[in-house]
Amino acid sequence: MNMSVTLPSGLLKIWEQVRSALDVVRPETSAAARLPAPVAKKPDVDLVALCETLLARKEENAGIKLVGQILDTYQSFSEDDRCRFLNALAERFGPDPARLDRAILAYQASPDDLAFRELQAAVEPRRQRLIRLLNFVPNGTFKIVQMRADAIRLKSKLPKFSQLDSDFAHIFRSWFNRGFLVLKQVDWSSPAQVLAKIIQYEAVHDIKDWSDLQSRIDPEDRRCFAFFHPQMPEEPLIFIEVALTLEIPATIESVLTGKSQVIRANEARTAVFYSISNCNIGLRGIPFGNFLIKQVVEVLRRELPNLDTFVTLSPLPGFAGWLARERKASAEGIISPEEARSLQTLDFEGWSKTPETSEAVRPLLVSAAARFLLQAKDENGLPADPVQRFHMSNGARLNRINWLGDVSGRGLKQAHGFMVNYLYDLKAIEANQEAIAVNGTIDVNPAVRDQLKVAKPPRVKAS
Amino acid sequence: MNMSVTLPSGLLKIWEQVRSALDVVRPETSAAARLPAPVAKKPDVDLVALCETLLARKEENAGIKLVGQILDTYQSFSEDDRCRFLNALAERFGPDPARLDRAILAYQASPDDLAFRELQAAVEPRRQRLIRLLNFVPNGTFKIVQMRADAIRLKSKLPKFSQLDSDFAHIFRSWFNRGFLVLKQVDWSSPAQVLAKIIQYEAVHDIKDWSDLQSRIDPEDRRCFAFFHPQMPEEPLIFIEVALTLEIPATIESVLTGKSQVIRANEARTAVFYSISNCNIGLRGIPFGNFLIKQVVEVLRRELPNLDTFVTLSPLPGFAGWLARERKASAEGIISPEEARSLQTLDFEGWSKTPETSEAVRPLLVSAAARFLLQAKDENGLPADPVQRFHMSNGARLNRINWLGDVSGRGLKQAHGFMVNYLYDLKAIEANQEAIAVNGTIDVNPAVRDQLKVAKPPRVKAS
Amino acid sequence: MNMSVTLPSGLLKIWEQVRSALDVVRPETSAAARLPAPVAKKPDVDLVALCETLLARKEENAGIKLVGQILDTYQSFSEDDRCRFLNALAERFGPDPARLDRAILAYQASPDDLAFRELQAAVEPRRQRLIRLLNFVPNGTFKIVQMRADAIRLKSKLPKFSQLDSDFAHIFRSWFNRGFLVLKQVDWSSPAQVLAKIIQYEAVHDIKDWSDLQSRIDPEDRRCFAFFHPQMPEEPLIFIEVALTLEIPATIESVLTGKSQVIRANEARTAVFYSISNCNIGLRGIPFGNFLIKQVVEVLRRELPNLDTFVTLSPLPGFAGWLARERKASAEGIISPEEARSLQTLDFEGWSKTPETSEAVRPLLVSAAARFLLQAKDENGLPADPVQRFHMSNGARLNRINWLGDVSGRGLKQAHGFMVNYLYDLKAIEANQEAIAVNGTIDVNPAVRDQLKVAKPPRVKAS
Amino acid sequence: MNMSVTLPSGLLKIWEQVRSALDVVRPETSAAARLPAPVAKKPDVDLVALCETLLARKEENAGIKLVGQILDTYQSFSEDDRCRFLNALAERFGPDPARLDRAILAYQASPDDLAFRELQAAVEPRRQRLIRLLNFVPNGTFKIVQMRADAIRLKSKLPKFSQLDSDFAHIFRSWFNRGFLVLKQVDWSSPAQVLAKIIQYEAVHDIKDWSDLQSRIDPEDRRCFAFFHPQMPEEPLIFIEVALTLEIPATIESVLTGKSQVIRANEARTAVFYSISNCNIGLRGIPFGNFLIKQVVEVLRRELPNLDTFVTLSPLPGFAGWLARERKASAEGIISPEEARSLQTLDFEGWSKTPETSEAVRPLLVSAAARFLLQAKDENGLPADPVQRFHMSNGARLNRINWLGDVSGRGLKQAHGFMVNYLYDLKAIEANQEAIAVNGTIDVNPAVRDQLKVAKPPRVKAS
Repeated sequence: MNMSVTLPSGLLKIWEQVRSALDVVRPETSAAARLPAPVAKKPDVDLVALCETLLARKEENAGIKLVGQILDTYQSFSEDDRCRFLNALAERFGPDPARLDRAILAYQASPDDLAFRELQAAVEPRRQRLIRLLNFVPNGTFKIVQMRADAIRLKSKLPKFSQLDSDFAHIFRSWFNRGFLVLKQVDWSSPAQVLAKIIQYEAVHDIKDWSDLQSRIDPEDRRCFAFFHPQMPEEPLIFIEVALTLEIPATIESVLTGKSQVIRANEARTAVFYSISNCNIGLRGIPFGNFLIKQVVEVLRRELPNLDTFVTLSPLPGFAGWLARERKASAEGIISPEEARSLQTLDFEGWSKTPETSEAVRPLLVSAAARFLLQAKDENGLPADPVQRFHMSNGARLNRINWLGDVSGRGLKQAHGFMVNYLYDLKAIEANQEAIAVNGTIDVNPAVRDQLKVAKPPRVKAS
Repeated sequence: MNMSVTLPSGLLKIWEQVRSALDVVRPETSAAARLPAPVAKKPDVDLVALCETLLARKEENAGIKLVGQILDTYQSFSEDDRCRFLNALAERFGPDPARLDRAILAYQASPDDLAFRELQAAVEPRRQRLIRLLNFVPNGTFKIVQMRADAIRLKSKLPKFSQLDSDFAHIFRSWFNRGFLVLKQVDWSSPAQVLAKIIQYEAVHDIKDWSDLQSRIDPEDRRCFAFFHPQMPEEPLIFIEVALTLEIPATIESVLTGKSQVIRANEARTAVFYSISNCNIGLRGIPFGNFLIKQVVEVLRRELPNLDTFVTLSPLPGFAGWLARERKASAEGIISPEEARSLQTLDFEGWSKTPETSEAVRPLLVSAAARFLLQAKDENGLPADPVQRFHMSNGARLNRINWLGDVSGRGLKQAHGFMVNYLYDLKAIEANQEAIAVNGTIDVNPAVRDQLKVAKPPRVKAS
Repeated sequence: MNMSVTLPSGLLKIWEQVRSALDVVRPETSAAARLPAPVAKKPDVDLVALCETLLARKEENAGIKLVGQILDTYQSFSEDDRCRFLNALAERFGPDPARLDRAILAYQASPDDLAFRELQAAVEPRRQRLIRLLNFVPNGTFKIVQMRADAIRLKSKLPKFSQLDSDFAHIFRSWFNRGFLVLKQVDWSSPAQVLAKIIQYEAVHDIKDWSDLQSRIDPEDRRCFAFFHPQMPEEPLIFIEVALTLEIPATIESVLTGKSQVIRANEARTAVFYSISNCNIGLRGIPFGNFLIKQVVEVLRRELPNLDTFVTLSPLPGFAGWLARERKASAEGIISPEEARSLQTLDFEGWSKTPETSEAVRPLLVSAAARFLLQAKDENGLPADPVQRFHMSNGARLNRINWLGDVSGRGLKQAHGFMVNYLYDLKAIEANQEAIAVNGTIDVNPAVRDQLKVAKPPRVKAS
Repeated sequence: MNMSVTLPSGLLKIWEQVRSALDVVRPETSAAARLPAPVAKKPDVDLVALCETLLARKEENAGIKLVGQILDTYQSFSEDDRCRFLNALAERFGPDPARLDRAILAYQASPDDLAFRELQAAVEPRRQRLIRLLNFVPNGTFKIVQMRADAIRLKSKLPKFSQLDSDFAHIFRSWFNRGFLVLKQVDWSSPAQVLAKIIQYEAVHDIKDWSDLQSRIDPEDRRCFAFFHPQMPEEPLIFIEVALTLEIPATIESVLTGKSQVIRANEARTAVFYSISNCNIGLRGIPFGNFLIKQVVEVLRRELPNLDTFVTLSPLPGFAGWLARERKASAEGIISPEEARSLQTLDFEGWSKTPETSEAVRPLLVSAAARFLLQAKDENGLPADPVQRFHMSNGARLNRINWLGDVSGRGLKQAHGFMVNYLYDLKAIEANQEAIAVNGTIDVNPAVRDQLKVAKPPRVKAS
């Protein structure tokens, strides 16, 4: 990950992994598609030359027209033209090597303040100033974010992608600093264009249509919150969906479809975070998610003092893959050869649909899930599952494993149907964050630990 | 100027000079004074240690409480404590020299992408990340700006001020990027707290009280515009006052007090920019002014299509000082010894109040003003007067010299009463900016050139 | 019409007729359906008694709780209970007959100011004060409007409906006075709940789904405007859909589906009002439509100075019915027996689909449409077609008859496919209004008059 | 009182009396004074004729231009012209007597629905429809309110004032129905034009200037709330000032000036309503005040759950006058002749300033105040003091008499320095309202009853 050099941030990496584990990335609506009238093509404009001219201007306000021209031209470009320009941006707008060499020598000769500042200036790629200048026009921010989205999409065709991307990310971290983000509730009175993006960007549990959307944000016992940037008020950056319930739910179905019984918001005891989705890929790697959950907890507590439990209902996307590998692994693994054999049931499609097969495999499978959650680690000693890693690093407690919590195709394929509740206990969050950061220990509900051992299977009566 | 290393920007420097020439700096309202309840003193907190702890946290969201604590503690500090902390910030939160040396050596050994990125990271002072982290809480931005304002005020007690200030400025340039600023009209329906700041910050022609303020923003033929940052909606960053008139005014008195005849806005032909003031000294050096004028011209043109003249009524703060030096200078100067003698009239207080003395000196003094405006240059070959330099670099035309345009104490003392109209002709601005930037030539109304020669004095009848 | 006694308003009546001609009325979403949690049933509350208690309270603020109780109870009522209550409202909350008789006698004895005021007071039905009191709680206005909507729906079961309705209407005319309505543009950034109502209430050309809606309000060359009341910000009262085009369109198909070629708004010359729909039936008879068109014309002119033509594309809902009657009528009618025979073509379904049949009947049918528009009158001497009557009374000009302008099932059935353009010429509107009001004359494009005569049929080649 | 016929409302009358007792009425800022450019005089326009033309128009939207003309002309009128027009309005725009007579006869002949509705229509003065039509233009509402303000001011020159005023009031009651009013907090971020009106309209304790205003609305322990109408967002209708304190304050001085010790809002236990002022005299008699207090209590409770006491600090404006009359009255009065003699102290100016005189008279004076509050009644058996009457009828409890609570000139003159705390106990309000409405009994703190008896004077040591 490119940002890790200057801004070490474990969560960031984790979040990235969550995204790819959940298969989040979707085709962006190209900005052009939203525009009512097509931008005339400007294929013959030498965009690189325009950028050089802009950088040459000493008076910053002298370039506003130029900036508009540059952004319009880029937007009128075909995919190929964009790729060519992004390559030029990556290769020709870095730092000036000669100036940098001189600055290094001068600093080595005399490491004083002046030499240090020149070194600082010389090391900054020219494209950073260029990007800042491109932001001088209305809507510039969004267009620059889309430029990075293009770069990420065209990554394989951009040999120097990582340099380029690192500069975008460096600037976006400053522009999208937590202090500038605005938390807004998204509900049925929100602008349609924002809601259309919620439908588009939902990454965990698909929203089928507007009526499905309404059922998630309009009832009294549903909430949705998103971060926005003041310059991009129509563009949610990240959003979270919340169900207000009496008890901690064990299945996603009960959250998404059990809507016959809407409850009064002020009677709810539990807030369930059942979906969190990043939006624009142009902002990939800029960390919003960890702030979002805590702030939403604060907002809900103030509005609904009766809430005393804040919990997720989360997928376990790494489990099935891990288990498959374990079953093939040698005798020394977490899963014994004997257990591996018992788990062959899983290879029969439909095992989850009849009580005979599912209840038979249940004790062992629950134990396997518990072992995965408690014992499977990544290279840094953190939980192997990306969603778990995200919530644990964020200070949550591993609270409950839910058998057949998600029996959708994806749920069965990725996690043999398991879902997990991670609990956000405000009093414990800080300590939990500290503990996992310092020595990798996680906060676990004892009941989950008990599940490590294979329980005796219940007797299933023949029907 | 500290910013000039990384972001060459002539206007910036000029604007700074305008500020000091106009004696703009005023005591900030300390944020504490506005707070309703006093913050409890926290003198024993080791703020430096808290900052180190914050920087040590890997998870950015883990530090929000800490950030609040740091900012509150700083705000509860006495002047001395603040000074001590700012010195620590300047001295102990720079880059890590050992890491930087290693990074330099690695880069010299193999200047590849990885080495470069490590060099980039190593050269960034640790306080930059610290400042960005401090922005994670509500109101953080304003508090950080105030921290820089403190540093500027305490400059003389901060040996390493320039390093510190350069980092603040670097970050503020990104945060207060033109694309994030919002232009708003300020009028009698604006929030009182914003208006209170207009009164406080007005730097060119004092606003005496609320009724004086109302006379400047409420009548149909008056306008005021300001830039705001979304995170600091109560805090104008820079503002400009406009009078809508039939003709180009020659005296500030006619603008400020000739209010018996309010005219209909849509009958006005001329928009007069008669006052432009920067606000928070914590944002010194961040360029807003040049953008402001052009955007206000756009806004006014759209609202009032009958406007065809956009012009300033500006002070000439450098004139009297320059003339005094010229009068003492050798024979080779712009003012001849003979002329210098004739100008002794100026040494008698009250020369401007009787026609006999004033009309006698008028032809020579007008010529001297024309020479000052056309011939006096600074070390860069730009106009010597800072206000003139600002508007010329901004693309305006030197349009008219106004005799006894400002007979207030300050007007007479700084400029022997002269005021100047600089004309913003939208069709000429870009070319003018280019011309002054490339070869230092300025756009001058021929009538002003004609004034270089001393006109024959009119005969003044004895009364 | 019940309102005509106190507030004579021809347009009102006309608009009512437009509504029924267009078959506008749709099932209201009952407010209950939108509420997330069901209101507990309160079947045993004696609502009439509660209302009497409320009216007995002298201090108006003493009744706020009571008001809430009354409105909640009503809302929890079944259809039958509501009907029973509305009947009581109509029968038991009129004026006090004894008091009225006394007041009349006193006034006849001595028609002084005091007697007159008592007469005024005595003639006011008690339910008027009741309705005003019910408005004291948040959301009261909407609930009262829904109460009237119930009454209109249950009309046939309410023997004294007209008394009741007249009081609702009297109060709503005051509450929804033109001066309190707010015109807002409805676009893709409007709240979803408002847009959902646009879909629901569209009465002229159905909106199929959200994507169809977006195509009507989001493109640069489409506009939608609605009136709102400040107390019911989610509830459009009436709305109009506008297409910006180069030429006056002749078919609705070109407006609704010819979207491949979106044009730039500032290149449009023509604004086409192609759909206008009233919303809540509880506000039936309160006139908004006539104000709406003129205000939208003003707004569009200011935004897009290039627009020079404001025109409708309207249905002709009365034509087919009128023609059927004429064809059966005696020789003295507008349609001659011979012509009637020629028009038998219309009795064959599908006549419009083959050029042979349609072109053969075209000259006569166009002439018949012209005669309908110019010669068919209602009992007041006004145009017989309700939509025509609305626009003519509103000051428009009958501009063009469009052959096969609407070939949808409804278009063919109601108007044999004709659509009409009525032109709003700002310079002519007032005079036109005066002319039709005073002597019933209408403003007609001469080209339409020319169509009164049957043109020679063009020769249609056999294919 | 003109409204009492149709809408019996005791509080209304009481509030009127409060206003005059407190000497509330101030010169309105005439709307003209606020306008930037003078309206050209239109003295020759026959406004009455214009109004007749408007009423003659059948199509309501045909008159919009006319409405603008009528309101502009009126506004350009001199005082005399206005007076003439208002007289015409009062005399010539009543009901049509002939029509009314016919309607009465028809109704007497056959009191059916049709006859009743015609009677209803005939009894409505024509000026009611006129006033409703005048509201069709932007800003119409405010201009009509100002028209009534003129009428009230010119009352003595309008022989038929009461007829005219009753129609204005009838319509305003509908337009300014509680359900349409919006409660807003007024603070230092409110628009300056709203704050300027707070300064202007404050009727109880003068606001000296903007800095005095800031001290009342900006500190954390101060609040101000006002009702607004959506059509007049710059115009507060009524406002209330609140101090958040630890204890119930006994003197106004401690509220207005004891600002050295601002407390944290969430530490406050008591909300003190120390000033409530009606604003525009054009809205005289439209009841807002009683709703305001209760709604503010609700808002404060939700924001600050620690508040448990809601209390006023009120003047006692009727006391001094009553006492003066009592002292002159015969032996049978509430004050005995002997007591009257003892009270001669009050005739010496400055009695309150030395402990010797003030402490000597204190026991008797406190008793007199208690007797006034508990025994002095108006003609309806309600408390004689108008402020007391307002709060008692509004459901408050008479809680405490404060000796030398207001030692300002007005406080001493009107109330011999007494102030009173009325307590709003949410649990008791409804019952209290009922009790005073039904049998005139008021809710009194026993401690106040104890003060009816003259306490033994404390011994004051000679200094």
